[in-house]
Amino acid sequence: MGKIICVGLGPGDPELMSVKSDRLIRSAKIVAFFRKKGSSGQARSIVNGMLRDDVIEYPMEYPLTSEIDFLSSIYKTRLSAFYDEWANKLKKLAKESNVIVLCEGDPLFYGSFMHLQTRIKNTVELAVIPGITGMSGCWTTIGKPFCWGDDTTTIIMGTLSSEKLMKSVTHGDALVIMKVGSHINKIKKALLKAKKLDQAWLVQKATMNDEKITKLSQVNLNTVPYFSIVLVHGEGRRP
Amino acid sequence: MGKIICVGLGPGDPELMSVKSDRLIRSAKIVAFFRKKGSSGQARSIVNGMLRDDVIEYPMEYPLTSEIDFLSSIYKTRLSAFYDEWANKLKKLAKESNVIVLCEGDPLFYGSFMHLQTRIKNTVELAVIPGITGMSGCWTTIGKPFCWGDDTTTIIMGTLSSEKLMKSVTHGDALVIMKVGSHINKIKKALLKAKKLDQAWLVQKATMNDEKITKLSQVNLNTVPYFSIVLVHGEGRRP
Repeated sequence: MGKIICVGLGPGDPELMSVKSDRLIRSAKIVAFFRKKGSSGQARSIVNGMLRDDVIEYPMEYPLTSEIDFLSSIYKTRLSAFYDEWANKLKKLAKESNVIVLCEGDPLFYGSFMHLQTRIKNTVELAVIPGITGMSGCWTTIGKPFCWGDDTTTIIMGTLSSEKLMKSVTHGDALVIMKVGSHINKIKKALLKAKKLDQAWLVQKATMNDEKITKLSQVNLNTVPYFSIVLVHGEGRRP
Repeated sequence: MGKIICVGLGPGDPELMSVKSDRLIRSAKIVAFFRKKGSSGQARSIVNGMLRDDVIEYPMEYPLTSEIDFLSSIYKTRLSAFYDEWANKLKKLAKESNVIVLCEGDPLFYGSFMHLQTRIKNTVELAVIPGITGMSGCWTTIGKPFCWGDDTTTIIMGTLSSEKLMKSVTHGDALVIMKVGSHINKIKKALLKAKKLDQAWLVQKATMNDEKITKLSQVNLNTVPYFSIVLVHGEGRRP
């Protein structure tokens, strides 16, 4: 009887995954990872060159991404069936051998693996290896201390409504906005209103070869990659 | 001419530091790390057994910890002089060789190294290697998904006043309270008022051999270690 082990891969640079994740990936006989249909998958790209020659790979392809509103019932139903299906498949595979699930960033922090975990727990032995979050990759790439002393840090999703976004961008000091994508102009408006637009950065593919850092105020696009992150630094107490 | 490289050590388990931090630490000729007077230092303990035999170690001992109010001017003056002194020492050392500064967790996320960085930058080449945060260690140890879908995550310090604490614990969904220490009862009161006490966990030394997870409501102490973390999980959208 094997285990299902979800390994956090960190923000993108393969050297930024933990020693433990690295070891588990290099010795894995079975790996599974999420990806968008038609793409090779970000998680899979990070481990390029690390896998055993005889590894068996299971790409778990999302049945849909942004073409259907995520609040609609069809989105929920189809995605739920997808997670059910893969939870069952992984449970079966784990009867023979350990199954390593690759997960970008930190698995229990807004990660897709959590939807498998809730379906698998108590049936098969499960373990999660944490990872460096994408947002840590972003503030390290910018290179400036992110939050200090008793700063409050607020982490919000660009998918929120304008009203909720507005309420959160005015709360606290340091600010992280994830899942930016097509929500960029809504985010810019909220930050402008909160007088935080001039301090905001947009970071894409942090720690990867093609990383990109821009002042958010200088971005004139209606959409950017979904996994881009907006950051506003805290300015807290410092001796 | 060398560089000053601050390496994030992650939450405590040495296997949870990044491959890059691990490599830099094992090859370091000079290491520096913060510690409380009279203690061996948490950062130094994490790298036990990893350092070269001929490494030169510089413990940077805080001139004070909690015996003086951190809002007082004497605290600010003494701590500021301490950081000035070490920034100058490390700059001199970096003229000969790389200097590796050990930092628990993720250096630019509430880390002490930031106070050196602001004093050193533009004079010596600097690099920061991110790490898994202490809070990631905590939610991974609890083992339950921490934040989902469009949950808002709020990260606050226990050192805040009751009023500010109250305002922040009612904001958003998932909640992290760091620097708990002697502020535990103030935190419990705020969470009780916000009807979140029953869902709150207290985690000490996550991912280390002596880690401890307790329901916060069941803790009857007036003080706990300063680096304990309180967590309230988000309950967001999930298909």
